[in-house]
Amino acid sequence: MLIGIPEAARELLTQDKILLISHISPDGDTLGCAFALYAALKSLGKQVKIRCSDDLPVRFSYLYLEYADEDFKEEYVVAVDVASTQLIGGKLINYYENIDLCIDHHPSNSMYAKKTCLNSDVAAACEIVYEILKVMCIEFTKQIANCLYTGITTDSGCFKYSNTTAKTHQIAADLMNCGADFAEINRFLFDTKSRSRIAVEQYVLNTIEYFYHDKVALVYISQKMIEESHADESELDGVSSLPRMIEGVEVGITIREKPDGSHKISLRTTESVDASKVCALFGGGGHKRAAGCIIQESFEESKLKIVEAVGRFLV
Amino acid sequence: MLIGIPEAARELLTQDKILLISHISPDGDTLGCAFALYAALKSLGKQVKIRCSDDLPVRFSYLYLEYADEDFKEEYVVAVDVASTQLIGGKLINYYENIDLCIDHHPSNSMYAKKTCLNSDVAAACEIVYEILKVMCIEFTKQIANCLYTGITTDSGCFKYSNTTAKTHQIAADLMNCGADFAEINRFLFDTKSRSRIAVEQYVLNTIEYFYHDKVALVYISQKMIEESHADESELDGVSSLPRMIEGVEVGITIREKPDGSHKISLRTTESVDASKVCALFGGGGHKRAAGCIIQESFEESKLKIVEAVGRFLV
Repeated sequence: MLIGIPEAARELLTQDKILLISHISPDGDTLGCAFALYAALKSLGKQVKIRCSDDLPVRFSYLYLEYADEDFKEEYVVAVDVASTQLIGGKLINYYENIDLCIDHHPSNSMYAKKTCLNSDVAAACEIVYEILKVMCIEFTKQIANCLYTGITTDSGCFKYSNTTAKTHQIAADLMNCGADFAEINRFLFDTKSRSRIAVEQYVLNTIEYFYHDKVALVYISQKMIEESHADESELDGVSSLPRMIEGVEVGITIREKPDGSHKISLRTTESVDASKVCALFGGGGHKRAAGCIIQESFEESKLKIVEAVGRFLV
Repeated sequence: MLIGIPEAARELLTQDKILLISHISPDGDTLGCAFALYAALKSLGKQVKIRCSDDLPVRFSYLYLEYADEDFKEEYVVAVDVASTQLIGGKLINYYENIDLCIDHHPSNSMYAKKTCLNSDVAAACEIVYEILKVMCIEFTKQIANCLYTGITTDSGCFKYSNTTAKTHQIAADLMNCGADFAEINRFLFDTKSRSRIAVEQYVLNTIEYFYHDKVALVYISQKMIEESHADESELDGVSSLPRMIEGVEVGITIREKPDGSHKISLRTTESVDASKVCALFGGGGHKRAAGCIIQESFEESKLKIVEAVGRFLV
């Protein structure tokens, strides 16, 4: 059942012994939601705990500063920024059919919870939590402001992406007035690169090839490179946006070798080419500007096929 | 003489035949100020023209869309985002002693104008122009919103830098409501890299060396590399922030070979090291977190000297 902000606030005000669940591969938004709610509910004297199927990333440790874990039998379960039960993750499978409240902003939310507070017009789930905490008359401490700011800046790409709204900026202004350490948070999220990410970028830049009068740029990541750099999935994904960043490039192609010798293609495009249509030719899919597919061929063969296919869609 | 927003608004409302001057090496803020003021003053039926000692960058052409140049004898001269007469530039030397109004946010403003509307607490001069246009009751068109948004996002690093305030976000929210193409502007300003910038990054990443248990990272840019990449000054400057971005690095050193064989050092640091003190040892200077100096030695000698000096300041 869909519910609004006031009803979500009422639920949280009247419940106790609350379990908050973040999604697998936790990011700044799901963690920001959970730890802001934790601080708010604790300030009301409630028992609260947070669980996630994956380990909490050390890099977000500033969000956990005021967290004191305790174990108790929960009576109310809240999932934050979790679009489907699969994203709750295997370790928490017992809760799949047992979520009382879901607070989310994904249009694809599968409505698995008993009650769902959903707004897909906001950049971050933390914007919804912000509104709920306002209705609950929670005092916004610096810690709460840091949690909510982290979620908002993460999912809006520091106010850069098209999902950002005027309201996103208004909330950021309020959180800054509450003491959010915005400059440190943004430096850490957007101006810090791991050694392994630097290693991947270095490697990838050395593989750039251009096609079709430089409208198409292609980079390659081999298994050997992945092993040598110790890059994780999110670091490898991040690099996929690199070729499309180059001035004049309309289609960026990243070819990544898989352990079984097949090749994963990531396509990033401007308006001119529909990435999902190109990838559909190889059984893949995605969005207009970002899509992917797998080609069961050698690197050279995969390259030939994807470059040829992209060419057919170029104006 | 220092004046406030209302008096600056009154000056602009009562004057006609207005010349607007942007600073040399024009950036998004000085251009955003000039073209927003142009649109506003034209909407009031005034004669207005814009001049800059340097060519207007093609990449900012979306700011010039509604500009129609005309020549007339100006009766009132306004400098925007120009901290000193030198920054007016050689082609406009006749105006050095002849600026009626300066609108600026640099604390170092030399007060060269007859009247100066200065606020050094704002991230961008465009924030001051925004306030002035509000007092003037100008209708904010999409074009004006795009100009002001460009200046604000440029100088605040897309709301990332510590100069950003709650007010900066509130203004951005208002400009978005006025139709600013914020996602396109940000993609163009922050997610687009020139071929020459990519070439410099590729080269620079291949030169990284680490010192002092990886707390110091050093990169090198040779003359040969500068010539081969066709990188301009701003592209080379941008790369200086790269080594400091690496996780765990407290001091980033960029050594750039000069045409005369000497070496320009750029230092970027975290709290732990005062960059200006290190550079002062070599007759240079700057700020705590960003400073520079010249060493009249070979690359190897320059490297030894700066790395040794940095080591003395490391905790």
